[in-house]
Amino acid sequence: MSHNVADFDRWIRSDFIRLNSELEGLYLAQPDPANVDGVGTELKQTLEQQGREFCRALLAEGNTDEGFEAAFDLLGNVGFYLAACRRHGLSDPDQDRRSPQEEASALAMHIAASIGVVPRFATAHLCTHNRAIQGQYKSFTDLADERCFIDYNTKGILAFKRAAEALLKTQALGISHPITLDLLRTAEQALREVRESNAMLFRTLDPHQFFYSVRPYYKPHHVGGQVYRGANAGDFAGINVIDMLLGLCRANDPDYGRMLVEKFLYMMPEDQRILRDCMRRRSLMDDFLAAREHHGQSWYQENLAALLRLCELHGEIATQHHDQLVQNFIVGPSEAMDRKHLGQLTASGPQLQHLLASLANLRDRRAATPREDLQTRYADVATLRQSLGVDHD
Amino acid sequence: MSHNVADFDRWIRSDFIRLNSELEGLYLAQPDPANVDGVGTELKQTLEQQGREFCRALLAEGNTDEGFEAAFDLLGNVGFYLAACRRHGLSDPDQDRRSPQEEASALAMHIAASIGVVPRFATAHLCTHNRAIQGQYKSFTDLADERCFIDYNTKGILAFKRAAEALLKTQALGISHPITLDLLRTAEQALREVRESNAMLFRTLDPHQFFYSVRPYYKPHHVGGQVYRGANAGDFAGINVIDMLLGLCRANDPDYGRMLVEKFLYMMPEDQRILRDCMRRRSLMDDFLAAREHHGQSWYQENLAALLRLCELHGEIATQHHDQLVQNFIVGPSEAMDRKHLGQLTASGPQLQHLLASLANLRDRRAATPREDLQTRYADVATLRQSLGVDHD
Amino acid sequence: MSHNVADFDRWIRSDFIRLNSELEGLYLAQPDPANVDGVGTELKQTLEQQGREFCRALLAEGNTDEGFEAAFDLLGNVGFYLAACRRHGLSDPDQDRRSPQEEASALAMHIAASIGVVPRFATAHLCTHNRAIQGQYKSFTDLADERCFIDYNTKGILAFKRAAEALLKTQALGISHPITLDLLRTAEQALREVRESNAMLFRTLDPHQFFYSVRPYYKPHHVGGQVYRGANAGDFAGINVIDMLLGLCRANDPDYGRMLVEKFLYMMPEDQRILRDCMRRRSLMDDFLAAREHHGQSWYQENLAALLRLCELHGEIATQHHDQLVQNFIVGPSEAMDRKHLGQLTASGPQLQHLLASLANLRDRRAATPREDLQTRYADVATLRQSLGVDHD
Amino acid sequence: MSHNVADFDRWIRSDFIRLNSELEGLYLAQPDPANVDGVGTELKQTLEQQGREFCRALLAEGNTDEGFEAAFDLLGNVGFYLAACRRHGLSDPDQDRRSPQEEASALAMHIAASIGVVPRFATAHLCTHNRAIQGQYKSFTDLADERCFIDYNTKGILAFKRAAEALLKTQALGISHPITLDLLRTAEQALREVRESNAMLFRTLDPHQFFYSVRPYYKPHHVGGQVYRGANAGDFAGINVIDMLLGLCRANDPDYGRMLVEKFLYMMPEDQRILRDCMRRRSLMDDFLAAREHHGQSWYQENLAALLRLCELHGEIATQHHDQLVQNFIVGPSEAMDRKHLGQLTASGPQLQHLLASLANLRDRRAATPREDLQTRYADVATLRQSLGVDHD
Ligand code: HEM
Ligand code: HEM
Repeated sequence: MSHNVADFDRWIRSDFIRLNSELEGLYLAQPDPANVDGVGTELKQTLEQQGREFCRALLAEGNTDEGFEAAFDLLGNVGFYLAACRRHGLSDPDQDRRSPQEEASALAMHIAASIGVVPRFATAHLCTHNRAIQGQYKSFTDLADERCFIDYNTKGILAFKRAAEALLKTQALGISHPITLDLLRTAEQALREVRESNAMLFRTLDPHQFFYSVRPYYKPHHVGGQVYRGANAGDFAGINVIDMLLGLCRANDPDYGRMLVEKFLYMMPEDQRILRDCMRRRSLMDDFLAAREHHGQSWYQENLAALLRLCELHGEIATQHHDQLVQNFIVGPSEAMDRKHLGQLTASGPQLQHLLASLANLRDRRAATPREDLQTRYADVATLRQSLGVDHD
Repeated sequence: MSHNVADFDRWIRSDFIRLNSELEGLYLAQPDPANVDGVGTELKQTLEQQGREFCRALLAEGNTDEGFEAAFDLLGNVGFYLAACRRHGLSDPDQDRRSPQEEASALAMHIAASIGVVPRFATAHLCTHNRAIQGQYKSFTDLADERCFIDYNTKGILAFKRAAEALLKTQALGISHPITLDLLRTAEQALREVRESNAMLFRTLDPHQFFYSVRPYYKPHHVGGQVYRGANAGDFAGINVIDMLLGLCRANDPDYGRMLVEKFLYMMPEDQRILRDCMRRRSLMDDFLAAREHHGQSWYQENLAALLRLCELHGEIATQHHDQLVQNFIVGPSEAMDRKHLGQLTASGPQLQHLLASLANLRDRRAATPREDLQTRYADVATLRQSLGVDHD
Repeated sequence: MSHNVADFDRWIRSDFIRLNSELEGLYLAQPDPANVDGVGTELKQTLEQQGREFCRALLAEGNTDEGFEAAFDLLGNVGFYLAACRRHGLSDPDQDRRSPQEEASALAMHIAASIGVVPRFATAHLCTHNRAIQGQYKSFTDLADERCFIDYNTKGILAFKRAAEALLKTQALGISHPITLDLLRTAEQALREVRESNAMLFRTLDPHQFFYSVRPYYKPHHVGGQVYRGANAGDFAGINVIDMLLGLCRANDPDYGRMLVEKFLYMMPEDQRILRDCMRRRSLMDDFLAAREHHGQSWYQENLAALLRLCELHGEIATQHHDQLVQNFIVGPSEAMDRKHLGQLTASGPQLQHLLASLANLRDRRAATPREDLQTRYADVATLRQSLGVDHD
Repeated sequence: MSHNVADFDRWIRSDFIRLNSELEGLYLAQPDPANVDGVGTELKQTLEQQGREFCRALLAEGNTDEGFEAAFDLLGNVGFYLAACRRHGLSDPDQDRRSPQEEASALAMHIAASIGVVPRFATAHLCTHNRAIQGQYKSFTDLADERCFIDYNTKGILAFKRAAEALLKTQALGISHPITLDLLRTAEQALREVRESNAMLFRTLDPHQFFYSVRPYYKPHHVGGQVYRGANAGDFAGINVIDMLLGLCRANDPDYGRMLVEKFLYMMPEDQRILRDCMRRRSLMDDFLAAREHHGQSWYQENLAALLRLCELHGEIATQHHDQLVQNFIVGPSEAMDRKHLGQLTASGPQLQHLLASLANLRDRRAATPREDLQTRYADVATLRQSLGVDHD
């Protein structure tokens, strides 16, 4: 690690958190906690200025070629800084034509291009690749709710990944292999953990605190001349691997395919590779549909039953995410909020209604809910379910 | 190759070319050859409809997993179709919110995501990866000027690549290695071929024909809900490898860095890899600047002289590109054109003036021209030039 | 899949199994069941001849470029054939200078080189990448004990992999991250499954049947002019990832390093990549040793306790493998066997005593047993254990 | 670069060269210059001891994870040391069961495994990846003939690579593409340079000096318990890419295939990748044979003529290599040498006669010479040649 890199990292782990936390305190103390204009001006200037110095030095230093991990980590730090600037109104995509943080933007673009990801912080920087030092990982603030959110996001992501890894391993064995059953059960266990972890998050996280002091760091913002949407807990391959290998979502469904396209550069290169590989595979559901004539075999009955349990669980988790998490931590608070802030609400840019509709579509695909206006696997799941049963010959 | 893939390819190589060519004939026969509205409506419908059928069948078939090359080739065919639709006004980013070619868009997005490139045709599809069958490679029309343009683009790109490959090989030898001189000379020979090939293109291509009947196929257009800029002959890694290894351009220069970021997904994955690798390297120019104390050594004198010849040549080619090709085949004809079409002129989207300015910046970087408003290596090249000379000790 | 490839696969899944099974019946019926000379000569000739025809046709067809998976699968089939020839004495490295199966050898070498693995069947072909068709995966014979052995090998390998995947994910979080504890627990759960599965294997597998009718298919044999050792259940990266990330074994320990070198090409390319990546990482044990001053922190206590449980479990499994599996299924039966066959006993070629010694070394490294003649982490584990305790400040 | 790495590199570039050079002086001064026994004992001890210290320190330091290039470079330095030990009789595969240089062996195995190559120095370390510092690249001695040999090897390899790169680019264009002709001509130019460079080497290198003082550093030797053959100038992918894309050699020819298998780990990973990719492609010769019905087309006549010129040139170079270089610098001197040293003569291990025969086979394949006992493309080349001619319709 070069000196500049180390200094910047130390700052991100100390003064940066302190400055953000103080600003959050000031915002919350106001009648309209969603307002940031004219609050804490000096703190904001300090934050912007100190970050700018680090970025300037790093930009001048150029790429020091210390490998992917070091570069990805540095990009995360620049990204934290840019996201904080946006949160404090030091940049605003509705007002600016380009990012006022020029050095940070240039640095982010340089690194990002050299490793093949978007030039902003992504979920991996916060969750799966956020190194702790003496027990402390990086964060924007020192708020307990931010830690709670990050912890349960990380838990959820890791469990989803575990499920995806198990499903990927079924590909080389096929649906009728005895050990495929073990793999489906491993995936089931992992999805149960996602469900449990999401339920804990729902019980623990404070909606108001999250909505006003955590979520604003995840807004879309400029890097250079282009706006990049905010990070979200779905920016890893595993969730889509599960979608597609189970067969609940399909890459050649235009809507779903578009979401995949849009998502690639928000994932780590390793995840991009996994998702690409997965896009060319057949789903377990399609394999079972093609094997229905063997419904009398015990492998068919056992493995299909396990698959359908997985589908059910995946649908439940999507429903829980939508009907509990999104509802409780975003829709609810936003209805209580001053309407003038609504435009700046979502992490992916589109207006809230639009976002909710597309999340509902995802939920219904995953839950194989019958929908007139959307391709779901409702009928196929029903067909398969019928082929399960005690009376098979 | 699946039947659907083969049928579509056959169509692209026959009826598609015929339909485009007939339409070009009709456009040119008009008083305002830039107008496409209301001309050849039936031909256009046939083209759109036939293409749509192929795409629909391919989309339903899903990814047939025949490897990168087959997928990339199919993407090219879908891309040719989408570009032709745009050229004939069957899609228009100024009017539409999303592509009217839904099936083609969905197919393009699916394939593109699965191989890691933009969902539109890129230069590689036209030039370096355009397989000929019995002497005929793919094209939009049967016009001689289109073939002329593609041929000389391909020649130029291949020669630039050769220069880049030679320069990359110097990295493991260093600036003082005796064989580095051979590599610099190989690069020089290749750049001479670029210059020669560009000069031939300048002499041979008809500006009017090019401007009205070839270039319109390279316009920005929607794929799904997003607009993608047109392909250009610079969408390969070699040119930037030369820029950066010579040292004339730098990845941490914000403008240049932004251009690299924007360009990545327009290149083939192999080229993305090369460019990424190159971004972490030191330039030959910086290596010589750091080695000036050895100016009395014969390796210094010989190898630096060869490097400076390369820089000069690279500048000349950029100047030739800007002052001859861009001027003659775009600026000139556009001044003669009805002003109402100006908005739709450029392949990269930005208005012509804006585009010209950024091309002029690139030219001046490559030529190391002194500029107040732009970082160029003018001073460094001068410093190095001074260290060359008979009177070295 | 080309016709030739499909035909060969069908043969491997039917007649090939039948022929091997009949031969096993004949061998077992003899007074010296280890003898194969002069038994079932016609069956052997049929097997050799039919396999040769398939290989000849495939060799003539050349590489049909259908991607890694198809090539790897075909290599497995050729490898099954070569291993069966060796088992039936149709090749013998002690007698031949090169493989009498010339076409199969040439085919195996061609494919293997083109995908970067050894030109023989590997464990992946039998276990993790052995596709079942209608419930039947590939095997040499139809013996229940072969299936038992393959099933529990596969279970063990998949569980080891799961543990390794969890440990690899700790690398980006560090030893003090709260979620690292989750990952260590996931690894612990997976290792418990290995232990359980090995115990089941021990209880279920018949030593005599295994020793005389299954194991002989895993002997070293020629491919072309070179002898390749037999496949073993350790030919995947996960086991060594666990060794090294826990810190119990080290890549710069000459003996252990040599084993890694020797093993690379027996693993799938993806596993080679994982193992390479892992070789450059620091172990969790070394990280904790360097962090002892923080022993008073709760993360230190909790995460270290989890790590030490993992170390213990890993040692137990190695001991179980050595003292139960190797002892019961190899050492025991071999002591009962006619001494003249002893030379041909082991899968890796070296004489049994030598093999046992090196497996005992591995066991002791993994169990951190104190050894005078071998680097083990006995002392370091003890040091760490001391830093655990209720009385920390 | 760690201190240890830097110190070792400095030693290799200074004292190491000095010690080897002095020893060469002593050997040459003897009546039997092939004898090394009992000569310069102290110098040898110094060399072995100093190298051992560096390796011990580096081994203890462990892998410092500074990327592929640094690791490959360090492996080269360890490899130079091991090769020099073998040259001076400090190791001898005919006598030892394993390398007496234990630390160096362990270090080499660790690094080699972690980057996927053999644990010894390879041609790339001497030629294409031998960084010069102030004009001096690494070598064993300071003899002018060693530099001459390295220089012309490097030139030849780089020119072969250039030819291969051009041929690989024809794959995406096909045999009938107009620009394929440019690529074939680029390859032709490159092969002319190989021929020229080989001719210069033939004229310049002193056979006696080369045979007695340079070549002995390229002998097979132990690393750990295994013997690795010596490096040779063919250990890069380009030469085989040319063989196979022209169609003169085929990967499914058992002899040639075996050579490829054996060669992989002696090449850099990038070259391994290129060679693998090439093994799945069709040759230009086969493409033309399949297109003979189009012999009346001008593309057929022009491109085939260019291909046949390339084949001829490739044959000439192979003949030049065998009949001039091998004859003059190995066969000749070895006939003059004391017979007792013959066993230790070749770099690849097999006895000289055996080696010569296999090189003659390669020559005849490349020259498409008619051979009863060997598949060559004599007849196919003749067929194609007949389809060339003025009288085509
Ligand atoms: C406070 C808790 C959470 C809230 C309010 C929430 C909200 C949202 C929202 C609004 C989006 C859409 C992002 C956008 O496009 O702007 C989203 C996406 C996503 N979230 Fe959450 N989320 C929460 C926690 C989690 C957790 C714990 C997980 C588990 C790993 C998760 C998994 C996902 C996934 C996978 C996506 C991508 C879309 C998809 O594939 O479903 N979320 N979330
Ligand atoms: C009948 C049961 C088994 C027997 C007799 C047995 C025997 C052996 C032998 C003799 C070797 C050394 C191979 C050689 O170099 O020739 C070996 C290696 C190995 N076996 Fe087993 N094995 C059995 C089952 C398993 C199972 C179920 C696993 C779990 C996955 C396993 C994991 C390994 C591993 C990882 C190695 C490589 C050496 C090491 O890293 O420990 N074995 N086994």
